[in-house]
Amino acid sequence: MRIGELSKATDVPVPTIKYYLREGLLPAGELSSPNQASYDDTHVRRLRLIRALIELGQVPVATVKEILESLDANAEPLHEQIGRAHRALTPARRLSATDEARSAAAAQVADLLRSRGWTVEPSAPALATLIDTVAAFRSLGQENLVADLDRKAEAVEAFTALEIDAVTANPTRDQVAESVVIGTILGETLIASLRLLAQESISAERWRDR
Amino acid sequence: MRIGELSKATDVPVPTIKYYLREGLLPAGELSSPNQASYDDTHVRRLRLIRALIELGQVPVATVKEILESLDANAEPLHEQIGRAHRALTPARRLSATDEARSAAAAQVADLLRSRGWTVEPSAPALATLIDTVAAFRSLGQENLVADLDRKAEAVEAFTALEIDAVTANPTRDQVAESVVIGTILGETLIASLRLLAQESISAERWRDR
Repeated sequence: MRIGELSKATDVPVPTIKYYLREGLLPAGELSSPNQASYDDTHVRRLRLIRALIELGQVPVATVKEILESLDANAEPLHEQIGRAHRALTPARRLSATDEARSAAAAQVADLLRSRGWTVEPSAPALATLIDTVAAFRSLGQENLVADLDRKAEAVEAFTALEIDAVTANPTRDQVAESVVIGTILGETLIASLRLLAQESISAERWRDR
Repeated sequence: MRIGELSKATDVPVPTIKYYLREGLLPAGELSSPNQASYDDTHVRRLRLIRALIELGQVPVATVKEILESLDANAEPLHEQIGRAHRALTPARRLSATDEARSAAAAQVADLLRSRGWTVEPSAPALATLIDTVAAFRSLGQENLVADLDRKAEAVEAFTALEIDAVTANPTRDQVAESVVIGTILGETLIASLRLLAQESISAERWRDR
């Protein structure tokens, strides 16, 4: 298809497509004449992925490029390829807490990883975020809200195992990698909105008469 | 205690405390002389909560005021009081999706609420976000990632029940309300970081040889 048809198929304006081509986010089409390139379904998929990253994930263009490069690095083992995309998508969030709360939190999280048998890189951004979050609960006098961290992690593990089962069911390696990227971004909003609805429903029951 | 001691106890600068007093976020101290006010532990707690809302929740000052007012509205039933704070904290996120995907998503989410027996207000912001998110998965050709929505919701419900148990264990109504506010904000980061760590650990196992 020509660039105009690609634009129609994806609802992305032609100038935006040209910008992605110039930036190297989208691979060039096949030249059918010196001034005319032709695009196919791989371009449609790639464009949808770019839009998802930018619109839904609010990922900066430079990071999008990095993620796409890691998706295209087929020479790497899949796990490393996915790990690179994952890290680019999930920067650590820093929260303030007292030093005392932070060191208690670090010990609690280390226990958690051991008891659940989770193996994670010590430099994983989510690890720093988890420690900071537990520390913030403690700093605010809400340690009882993280007292049952292990059971909470167990519930989250059940959710994540379902996500990974679905992603793994993809037939090709490229599709696995693409699903991981989309699933990482949209899955966060999915779990957050399910949690808020569950809260509303359960709390309505519990506190109706209080 | 005097304002300088309050500042020391909370690590919030005196001018910032004065700003919160002027804006009505923090109740006035008791006048011990015409030019001198005295503050107590309720001020310390309230200041910590304000900082959590602003720093961790990135809640705008006007919304903080609204949330604090709903916390202080002791005349209301607790459930409504909490519901008001909850909604102020959780604006809907709009994601783009095709109309077709959105109507399929709305039907899927309606089924989910029925099958889990969740009762939520049709105007709940998280409901719009959930529908948009499911629609975005479908628009991106990832319907298999939301095919098992009911089992995912079950896992999230287990997490949420633990949260609500912990919050409910607070002895006073004020503490319940404060825990809900902090738990809503920090709980989102908690569940998100646990999910990323579980993903890293489970995917390392599954994809090591692929």
